[in-house]
Amino acid sequence: MHTLMVDAPSHRYPIYIDATLSSLLEKHLAEHITKDCVIVSNDTIAPLYLKTVQDAVRRLGIRVFDIILPDGEHYKNLNTIEKIYDGLMRERMERQSTLIALGGGVIGDMVGFAAATYQRGMPFIQIPTTLLSQVDSSVGGKTGVNHALGKNMIGAFYQPQAVFAALDVLNTLPEREFSAGLAEVIKYALLGDAAFFDWLETHMEELMRHDADALSYVVHRCCAKKAEIVAADEKEKGIRAWLNLGHTFGHAIETELGYGVWLHGEAVAAGMVVACRLSEQLGYIMPQETQRVQQLLQRAKLPDTPPSFAWEKWIAHMQHDKKVESGTMRFVVMRQLGQAEIYPCQDISIIQKSLQEWLP
Amino acid sequence: MHTLMVDAPSHRYPIYIDATLSSLLEKHLAEHITKDCVIVSNDTIAPLYLKTVQDAVRRLGIRVFDIILPDGEHYKNLNTIEKIYDGLMRERMERQSTLIALGGGVIGDMVGFAAATYQRGMPFIQIPTTLLSQVDSSVGGKTGVNHALGKNMIGAFYQPQAVFAALDVLNTLPEREFSAGLAEVIKYALLGDAAFFDWLETHMEELMRHDADALSYVVHRCCAKKAEIVAADEKEKGIRAWLNLGHTFGHAIETELGYGVWLHGEAVAAGMVVACRLSEQLGYIMPQETQRVQQLLQRAKLPDTPPSFAWEKWIAHMQHDKKVESGTMRFVVMRQLGQAEIYPCQDISIIQKSLQEWLP
Repeated sequence: MHTLMVDAPSHRYPIYIDATLSSLLEKHLAEHITKDCVIVSNDTIAPLYLKTVQDAVRRLGIRVFDIILPDGEHYKNLNTIEKIYDGLMRERMERQSTLIALGGGVIGDMVGFAAATYQRGMPFIQIPTTLLSQVDSSVGGKTGVNHALGKNMIGAFYQPQAVFAALDVLNTLPEREFSAGLAEVIKYALLGDAAFFDWLETHMEELMRHDADALSYVVHRCCAKKAEIVAADEKEKGIRAWLNLGHTFGHAIETELGYGVWLHGEAVAAGMVVACRLSEQLGYIMPQETQRVQQLLQRAKLPDTPPSFAWEKWIAHMQHDKKVESGTMRFVVMRQLGQAEIYPCQDISIIQKSLQEWLP
Repeated sequence: MHTLMVDAPSHRYPIYIDATLSSLLEKHLAEHITKDCVIVSNDTIAPLYLKTVQDAVRRLGIRVFDIILPDGEHYKNLNTIEKIYDGLMRERMERQSTLIALGGGVIGDMVGFAAATYQRGMPFIQIPTTLLSQVDSSVGGKTGVNHALGKNMIGAFYQPQAVFAALDVLNTLPEREFSAGLAEVIKYALLGDAAFFDWLETHMEELMRHDADALSYVVHRCCAKKAEIVAADEKEKGIRAWLNLGHTFGHAIETELGYGVWLHGEAVAAGMVVACRLSEQLGYIMPQETQRVQQLLQRAKLPDTPPSFAWEKWIAHMQHDKKVESGTMRFVVMRQLGQAEIYPCQDISIIQKSLQEWLP
């Protein structure tokens, strides 16, 4: 059992990490809800864990409703947010009621955004059920939905009251999604923790068979890193942008293929390989280091190259990225493995060179 | 020419008040926009003032686009927000671009919400073109849209970079809307400024004929009051709720009649009369004082009684109000004219009594 604190300037809150969901809820839920609450989940997760959470809330003598959404990135849009609002209005939820996000990153991002904007802000709790959301998206207060022309274009910075990361829920996660989560784990190592990269090279097989100690260590180490970065830069004016390592390229891949064809973590994995090539072009890392990254991704059953599509499409997709500033695209690169930095790109021919081997 | 500062905890910004829009823009626009901007207006206001604002932006060498929405409270919903997002995406607006809200309260609330949520927050400027929005809604960072089941249920607290209040734009305001603005002016007097109530009783005729000095005085005095309240309580945890004087009843009237049948200010005017009756019931004010309020409203060509509809409907509409807390309805009442306080209502029969004379 670990508790980490996230010291975001706008709100300080705990991340609880423990072996089982039921023990976590029993120990800590009472501190964080005081009146009516609504659990929002999807039709994949609800049959598995909704009852556990409902029972825990009811044992506190608190009214609980649920809103069950269709599963998938495809539904991460304003229409689904409206469905959440409709449910909250129908059940007459108030500003002091609590929303509980029970699911992966898509559920967490959407519920966070609904919480940020229902009656101009109500409390919410994250119960992430995927590795990706446990180590990344549930922490730090980035909430939102996709626009038809770009990913996560609509949203708000809004912090949860608490994050409940239970390791046992990962047992029902499909292997492909588990691997997608490992992409974000590897990202933390690449952007700021070289020793953790070495550790991952040594322990990838244990992780792949869901060894409890290894998993606990990984969730804790990633959340600690994320908490440190969010505390330093909640609104992404500076170092928080490092967390986008692989994401500008990854978003272009997701946009090109259509949301959900590749999982977000898969796109980020391939995006990190492109970021490695860009770091090579800048003279920062060596091809052998890119190869180390690719090998680790392979062992995590992740793509180690992007799909092939035209340069014009890459550039069109990337220009819609939120990291564009004054028309200049900003990429996260690695000065060395374990040390990220921002590269404001004045001349896009270097990006084209980094992608060269994968262009049609 | 006046400049007032709003010291909201999240952001400090100026309200500029001057005789003409063109002089205001010339003096102050350059300080507040640095790159591309999008003016959002409606099809009533755009023909009158869009060109003035466009020209002022272009003189600064800055690219400017516009999004023109249909006029009316009826369009204050998420669908219209999506249209704004679509325009921003189409023109590839970035986080550092600026949105300009050119219009009344509906435009200001919607543009503020779009700015709060596009790419998790971009800067915006308020150019209020109605008396109501100049003295009230453009200041203080309440943004949002209506839900089919309740007014302003979806939104965010998000402060503008600056407010440009030009008195000459009020010359094109229909008389009925001007009067609606006076309802909010009278509200400031009733909630916290007894001397201003006396002043209004003396100067109502000058105001009704748009006397420039009287108008300038009123806009300045109301904005100063609003700024003081927002600085003390940005997120409406305490005294900011005073600004809702007449609004709980007013919202019920608007919901019952359908948004836009009565103007917001008209509903608030009638709502304040009900709040007077409730204050009488509590033993705070005398029937003669309610009569003074009604007489001032009449002179401002505002309704001084609510429409007649069933008690059950009043209560149903009011229970959806954001000011409901733990199931207890909270009303703003007057301890005396010029001194508001919050009344948490344990027994709704007193509300029924306050409405008695207007129930069918």
